[in-house]
Order: sequence, then C-alpha cells, then structure tokens
Amino acid sequence: MFTGAQISLYPMTSEFVPVILDALKALDPWKDRLRIETDDISTLVVGPPEVLFPALRDLFVRAAATRAHVVLHATLSRGCPGEPDDPMCVTGALANPDEPVAQRVQDARAAVTGAAPTGEEAAAQMSLYVMGQGDHMAEIYGCIDFIKASGVFEKSKNFCTKLRGDAGPVFATVAEAFCRFGPPEGHVTVDLTVSANSPSKV
Amino acid sequence: MFTGAQISLYPMTSEFVPVILDALKALDPWKDRLRIETDDISTLVVGPPEVLFPALRDLFVRAAATRAHVVLHATLSRGCPGEPDDPMCVTGALANPDEPVAQRVQDARAAVTGAAPTGEEAAAQMSLYVMGQGDHMAEIYGCIDFIKASGVFEKSKNFCTKLRGDAGPVFATVAEAFCRFGPPEGHVTVDLTVSANSPSKV
Repeated sequence: MFTGAQISLYPMTSEFVPVILDALKALDPWKDRLRIETDDISTLVVGPPEVLFPALRDLFVRAAATRAHVVLHATLSRGCPGEPDDPMCVTGALANPDEPVAQRVQDARAAVTGAAPTGEEAAAQMSLYVMGQGDHMAEIYGCIDFIKASGVFEKSKNFCTKLRGDAGPVFATVAEAFCRFGPPEGHVTVDLTVSANSPSKV
Repeated sequence: MFTGAQISLYPMTSEFVPVILDALKALDPWKDRLRIETDDISTLVVGPPEVLFPALRDLFVRAAATRAHVVLHATLSRGCPGEPDDPMCVTGALANPDEPVAQRVQDARAAVTGAAPTGEEAAAQMSLYVMGQGDHMAEIYGCIDFIKASGVFEKSKNFCTKLRGDAGPVFATVAEAFCRFGPPEGHVTVDLTVSANSPSKV
C-alpha cells in the first residue's frame, strides 16, 4: 500500500511566501512519520492516513490563523497500482472489507463525533474516486450518505460534495471518507479543496 | 453525457478580488455555450470539452498576464452516472471506442501539435481517473505515454504527471487526455492544477 497526497497552499495575499513557510512548520511534529518533497507546484506528503490527515489539518489551521484568505488543495491517493508498497504507509485505519456500507457509514459517523475542534472554520469540497473492479458508484453513494450525516455537510454540488464547519470535524470527515469507502486494497483518490477566511458571501 | 468542471482561480496577491473578476471576463466569448454558477469555493462550468478547455485556457492566460503568481485548479468530469444528460454537453471530441490505445496516442499528439501558442508559460500537473469497468490502468498508462510525447511533458510525480510549456499546448494536452482515454461513455475525471509566475525555482 502506498498512501499520500500532493498538497498546495494558496494564501491570497502578496505576503504568500512567509505565510506558506510559516504554515509548513505545523508539519514538524508529524515529520518523523511522513516523507515530504517539494517542487514549484506542490508538496508530496507520503504516510499513513492517521498521520496524513491530522498533519494537513494542522497545516491548514496554522495558515488560516493568519486571517488571510487561504486555500489548501490536496490530491490524495491510496493503493495506486503504479506506486510501490512503502513500509512508511502501514496503517490500521482502513475499513474491514467485509463490513456492509451501512455499518461503515455508522462507524465513520462515530469517528467524526470524536474529532476535537480547532477553533478555525473551514469550507471544503471533496470528490471521492474509486477505481477498478466492483460497483464504484455504490461506494460513492455510501460515502455521500455518510457525509450528509457527518455534521459538516453543507450541500451537494456537481462533481463534488461541500462541507462546512470547524476544521477538526471537517478533516476527520474527509479522512473517514478516504479510509472507509472503496475496497481496502483498491485504488481510491480524493480531490480536496479547503478554504478559510473567504470574503465571498455564501 | 454531462461534462464540466468545478474551477477555482487563486491569485497570490492581496489584490486577488480584482484579478479574479477581471480574469472571468475571458469567459465572455464562450458564455453562450457554457452554463456557469459560482459560490465561495469554486465556479461550475458545464459544456462540451471543445468549449470548456479553450475557455479555461483563456481564463488562465488573462490572469497570468497580470504577472501575479496565479494558480487555476479544475476538477473536470465527464460521464458521471450521478449527473443527468445535458444537451449543452453534446460533443464530437471524444475518441472512437474501437480505436486501440496506440492510435489514440498518435491522434492526441497530432491535435496538440496544432495548438496555437498564447505567449504565457504554464506549469501544470494532472491526474486522470477512469472509473468503472475495464482495465483502468491500461487507459492511464496510455494517457501517460501520450503526455510523455506531447512536447510539454516535464516529469512523472507520485499521483500525477507534470507539464510545462506555453499554455496553448498545455491546455490542449489536458483536453486530449480527458477526451481520448477512458471509454467515451465511461466516467472519467481529471484533477488539474495550472500555475503561472511562481517565484519558486524549479
């Protein structure tokens, strides 16, 4: 299994460089459990979901705390057949493949209920993609059912689902969607956008 | 068939609002062939690929011309089983399903060769996702073969492929990838990031 994300942080301020460099310090407590590589478009973060999602949450919260309008985008992936197995990615976070969708929805809801608030509000949207064999839409609809009951659901949109709430449960919801839907050994990706401090009226 | 994108433009400047509002004027010549809806996270653009990609290119080029560091992100989708057919999306741009991958690679290369330059350089990365039945990795590997021969290939990365070149052939390459790989009636998505004027050294 290979799990990780290409992430980018977009601060809508002329001081974007210091905002990014400061926010990256939020990854320090997680660094010994992640592999991190940066280029001019994105930063690769490789590691298990139980480290990856809290690390992204902390990065977002630190950037949001500057009060600038900031957006974090992540292209998340697990189980891509083109990537090598990596011992760094060993995880206990994926759902039991024998569990029916309804049970996984219930377990995911319970996990989000326990997520600690961060004090920063996040507006987010995500698309879950399940590749390969099986009925990929059944998994996607199950995931949408979970998100609607997560407490941070805002609305359905074309191509994605929109969330809003404290960044704690928002990132926990994305983590549960990523881990519990689609087969544990399958190829699952998430296209995630998380925004703070937007001046746009909702 | 339902084809479109959720797009967001991120200008890394404190003047981001006027940059976004001005760039959106680049969509005017395309508006009668697109449906456009905006909220605080993204703008939905629905229409056929032969309108969608030139419209996104023009939006990007106009924003890049401000010389600010700007990033365009698009979540592109065609054929999602959860979306209704839309007459607005009728297209002649999708590949013949009976064509072998090698032929589609060749046709896609020819199409990119004819793309007019815009004068703006773009650094981009994209992931192609092919859902549902069949060997999705064969289509993805075929698409990667095409991108490597497109003239704007920069490098392979985990989870995505990186492009660099004039925005004309870069957007044409993404359009060909989206239209010619994965079954014409299938569910295909692209996670696309395009960046201009980054201060980061490559």
